[in-house]
Amino acid sequence: MTVINRLKARIRDVQDFPKPGILFRDLTPVLEDPALFADLVEAMVGPWRDSGVTRIAAVESRGFLFGAPMALALRCGISLIRKAGKLPHKTIARSYALEYGEGVLEMHANTVGPNDKVVIVDDLLATGGTAAASAHLIHDCGAKVLGSAFAVELAALEGRKKLEGRVEALLRY
Amino acid sequence: MTVINRLKARIRDVQDFPKPGILFRDLTPVLEDPALFADLVEAMVGPWRDSGVTRIAAVESRGFLFGAPMALALRCGISLIRKAGKLPHKTIARSYALEYGEGVLEMHANTVGPNDKVVIVDDLLATGGTAAASAHLIHDCGAKVLGSAFAVELAALEGRKKLEGRVEALLRY
Repeated sequence: MTVINRLKARIRDVQDFPKPGILFRDLTPVLEDPALFADLVEAMVGPWRDSGVTRIAAVESRGFLFGAPMALALRCGISLIRKAGKLPHKTIARSYALEYGEGVLEMHANTVGPNDKVVIVDDLLATGGTAAASAHLIHDCGAKVLGSAFAVELAALEGRKKLEGRVEALLRY
Repeated sequence: MTVINRLKARIRDVQDFPKPGILFRDLTPVLEDPALFADLVEAMVGPWRDSGVTRIAAVESRGFLFGAPMALALRCGISLIRKAGKLPHKTIARSYALEYGEGVLEMHANTVGPNDKVVIVDDLLATGGTAAASAHLIHDCGAKVLGSAFAVELAALEGRKKLEGRVEALLRY
């Protein structure tokens, strides 16, 4: 079976989470399967091998699980995109809309600079609000956004229309 | 320089975060340094190579950054320890005390079982409240706790007294 089919077989659909009407694609069973998680990370890394990426921007919290191993495989550093109030040093902020709810994302002000080429990593692309706000933060620091990497994309929500650069998602629903 | 000295040189001390009187050890500059992060993960993995570990329990959120690459290196799955309301499937819960504040931790009810030998991973050991609550959750599932792994330990807070099994921390303040 391909990584995509194994991924599809492992993802658990949870109805009405985190609120009524939402079908949540739960990737935690994928994390419990070490061979699948390793192959998934490898597949997510592939498109960026010769991209010149210098930095992974990992989106809190599930993006940390994919962003950290991808950064190690690509030999680049990690910058964290976190919810408001979580980063201890000087931050910049952008508001964002999620599939369910709203919030503010922050990044450390000097974590990337004009020489950086950044790939944004999260587990899942829904409406694209989080990734678009992340791209704004990266631009605010003067860095370039190469694109975004996701394990799963909810294609019907058309999140990729909000994003710049390459948008790589392994499994599209 | 040893990994420990490189780690120490990179950690940023932030006074009065997240509240007055707390000296926060900020590891985000370590994440920005790909060679150091790779060596740090390798050093954290070392003690568990022949331990029989079958599962990494990664503690939200910074524990995800270390737990995911450690799980890949040790070829074992990842179970998430998250704050209340974040996990979509059936969960079990334990309350915990932090260095600053209180909360509830959750784990998916069947993410580990009687055949699992679990290592708890977080970035930093402070009072040990989070790791101790994580160990309770793992026991509640009938699994064995081999120990805990941290990049940094605030030794004066004596968190390791609350923990069972091996407690491995690379840099002790």
